[in-house]
Amino acid sequence: MNTQSVEQYMDQLGQQARAASRQAAAAETSAKNIALVEAASAIEDQAQELARENNKDLEAGRTKGLDAALLDRLELTADRIAGMAEGLRQVALLTDPVGEITSMSYRPSGIQVGHMRVPLGVIGIIYESRPNVTADAAALCLKSGNASILRGGSEALHSNLAIAKCIGQGLQAAGLSETLVQVINTTDRAAVGMLLTMPDYVDVIIPRGGKGLIERVMRESSIPVIKHLHGVCHVYIDDEADMEKAVKIAVNAKTHRYGVCNAMETLLVADSVAARVLPVLAQHYIKAGVELRGCSKTRAVLSDINAATEDDWDAEYLAPVLAIRVVDGIDQAIQHIDQHGSQHTDAIVTENYSKSRKFLRLVDSSSVMVNASTRFADGFEYGLGAEIGISTDKLHVRGPVGLEGLTSQKYIVLGDGHIRQ
Amino acid sequence: MNTQSVEQYMDQLGQQARAASRQAAAAETSAKNIALVEAASAIEDQAQELARENNKDLEAGRTKGLDAALLDRLELTADRIAGMAEGLRQVALLTDPVGEITSMSYRPSGIQVGHMRVPLGVIGIIYESRPNVTADAAALCLKSGNASILRGGSEALHSNLAIAKCIGQGLQAAGLSETLVQVINTTDRAAVGMLLTMPDYVDVIIPRGGKGLIERVMRESSIPVIKHLHGVCHVYIDDEADMEKAVKIAVNAKTHRYGVCNAMETLLVADSVAARVLPVLAQHYIKAGVELRGCSKTRAVLSDINAATEDDWDAEYLAPVLAIRVVDGIDQAIQHIDQHGSQHTDAIVTENYSKSRKFLRLVDSSSVMVNASTRFADGFEYGLGAEIGISTDKLHVRGPVGLEGLTSQKYIVLGDGHIRQ
Repeated sequence: MNTQSVEQYMDQLGQQARAASRQAAAAETSAKNIALVEAASAIEDQAQELARENNKDLEAGRTKGLDAALLDRLELTADRIAGMAEGLRQVALLTDPVGEITSMSYRPSGIQVGHMRVPLGVIGIIYESRPNVTADAAALCLKSGNASILRGGSEALHSNLAIAKCIGQGLQAAGLSETLVQVINTTDRAAVGMLLTMPDYVDVIIPRGGKGLIERVMRESSIPVIKHLHGVCHVYIDDEADMEKAVKIAVNAKTHRYGVCNAMETLLVADSVAARVLPVLAQHYIKAGVELRGCSKTRAVLSDINAATEDDWDAEYLAPVLAIRVVDGIDQAIQHIDQHGSQHTDAIVTENYSKSRKFLRLVDSSSVMVNASTRFADGFEYGLGAEIGISTDKLHVRGPVGLEGLTSQKYIVLGDGHIRQ
Repeated sequence: MNTQSVEQYMDQLGQQARAASRQAAAAETSAKNIALVEAASAIEDQAQELARENNKDLEAGRTKGLDAALLDRLELTADRIAGMAEGLRQVALLTDPVGEITSMSYRPSGIQVGHMRVPLGVIGIIYESRPNVTADAAALCLKSGNASILRGGSEALHSNLAIAKCIGQGLQAAGLSETLVQVINTTDRAAVGMLLTMPDYVDVIIPRGGKGLIERVMRESSIPVIKHLHGVCHVYIDDEADMEKAVKIAVNAKTHRYGVCNAMETLLVADSVAARVLPVLAQHYIKAGVELRGCSKTRAVLSDINAATEDDWDAEYLAPVLAIRVVDGIDQAIQHIDQHGSQHTDAIVTENYSKSRKFLRLVDSSSVMVNASTRFADGFEYGLGAEIGISTDKLHVRGPVGLEGLTSQKYIVLGDGHIRQ
């Protein structure tokens, strides 16, 4: 396609999505659930075809010399195909958020006022190599009553289109328009720029991917963005911590998984317990293969480790590396988190009531925890059923984003001929 | 000030606001209330000084040849000064939203998860001529735990600075920093552009004013905007309406006040009742001096009125003018609202249960009403206590915006040494 025809194509997708969003908003819960369950069956029935289309992407990727990690993310194994189908069925089981009415109350004027939950409209999702995001994102947008326009990585286009075909079959089986979920069928990068600047057709953009993608989206989008920027998470071990819990949590937060945004990147330890807890922790970390980088007070206890530089306090390693700083106490810990954190997830370990309250109130992060591992910051762990990502924004939705985060509310007013006096 | 010094000045305001926002977020409810009540007293005590400063603005305005309506909005009469003080005291009486904890529940993992309400941080408010907005906006931002940077109309600078001085005295009396509320002390228009592009210092921009202002803010801002664009509100009189209620509501929605965003601009009437209800309504409207513009079917009933053009369906008159269209029934009414409305406030008058449910579900506006006047779309009427405006956005906050709309939520997690398995 040349630029002009990409423009026409995107304009058409946008128009179709806007029209479909009305159907999506009005769709009954049962229709949405049927679509999801039928799409799941289509994915299982057409597993071989999906694998075949995925193989085209994999071969092209190998020819292009994509690295092993990327090829791994790109691959639709039998397990991953089954996982997609299972994911669709799980979303079908979730409570429909659309139309939920809350807080209806009578006002002195006699009117009854409350909130009704409503879809956002059209959601544009831009993601990278993993094709199973196509199914996940489509399912969450559909169940929350939104139309979606999906733009996956260009290296995954065959896979994404094959998945979209199955979802289209589900929509059809439920009597819904296939345009409720549209995958952008061109690898032209200009299409992304156009998607980001169609405020008449798209209500919100959700980028899922690395920092480069998200920064491009933030720079170019004229549409509100729900973004996940980065996670520089802290655990602060207070001088009144239960040391057994402290060790469990600090080890879990770092070593449970490394490449995730809710992994701890900096450990803060109160001065008066540093000599007691750091050697125990160091043993665990070294056994797990974690490289430690400490401040001077940390190195006074752990003499073998490297010095942390200023950059370490701001680093999201996503790797077996941990920065450690000894602080005076809770105030300096909060100050450090305020200065170097990314407002993602931060935890305190303490048995002190007042300090737990202080930390919960003053730390300005999307998840703030007491005596729990930062690894819990996750839509499934929080009971959202599924998540489209973790928002590091403060407006609209913050932290793990489930179905509710893809909706808004309107006021509803019931009267009986009431007029304003 | 030259551009460079405006830049330095704005940078300083921004830094001070960011620092102050931490104090604002941590401030106890009692401190915020003392500040508000003391500011109210300061305004009353210094009423004469306020009037004197206001007079400087009025004289300059007259010299500049500002029109009468603008001079009226600019004037701080004794009543308006008393009203500002009263407004501050009312905000002090409202429940503090900050720190409210909701939906705490235990998860299968053993952690307890819920939400805590938190301030947004720094709010930039850009408004036009009415100086009493300074007191209103400052009060709502302070009570919701936010720092604020206020930029009023340049013609009101003396008045705004005098009000800010009173608020500063209130803050001081409560032991809070005066930098929690800052009025931009320059009339240089470049200051607005800078305010809109300081995402490190400002978390959200709220423009209050005409379409020109809001469109400039939307165009230039690199910071999320909570905006109020326009109100093209509809009342649909269904064929199953109680005609007495219909007349009451349609008259009130249009004639109660003209220059307000929640006034009805287009009346939709079901075909089968048009001949019965329109003549009665026309009598009321003509008595009130409302100019009517109708579609051809309307004019078949009301032969004396002008024809409505396509532009009339999209017009926000804010004046004694009303467009009237006869529609087939509820579906065409919803379609008309979808096509021409501004997603602000729309009402149906009907006694039919299913149609009331359909209208509530399908009309995508910030307030949707059954058998009530659109004039109720208002923070005070909805019980928010006060409002900073009415959001026509869909993300973050929709409809009348009170204290809660100036806050966000964070997840809080309580554990007892819990780790992710």
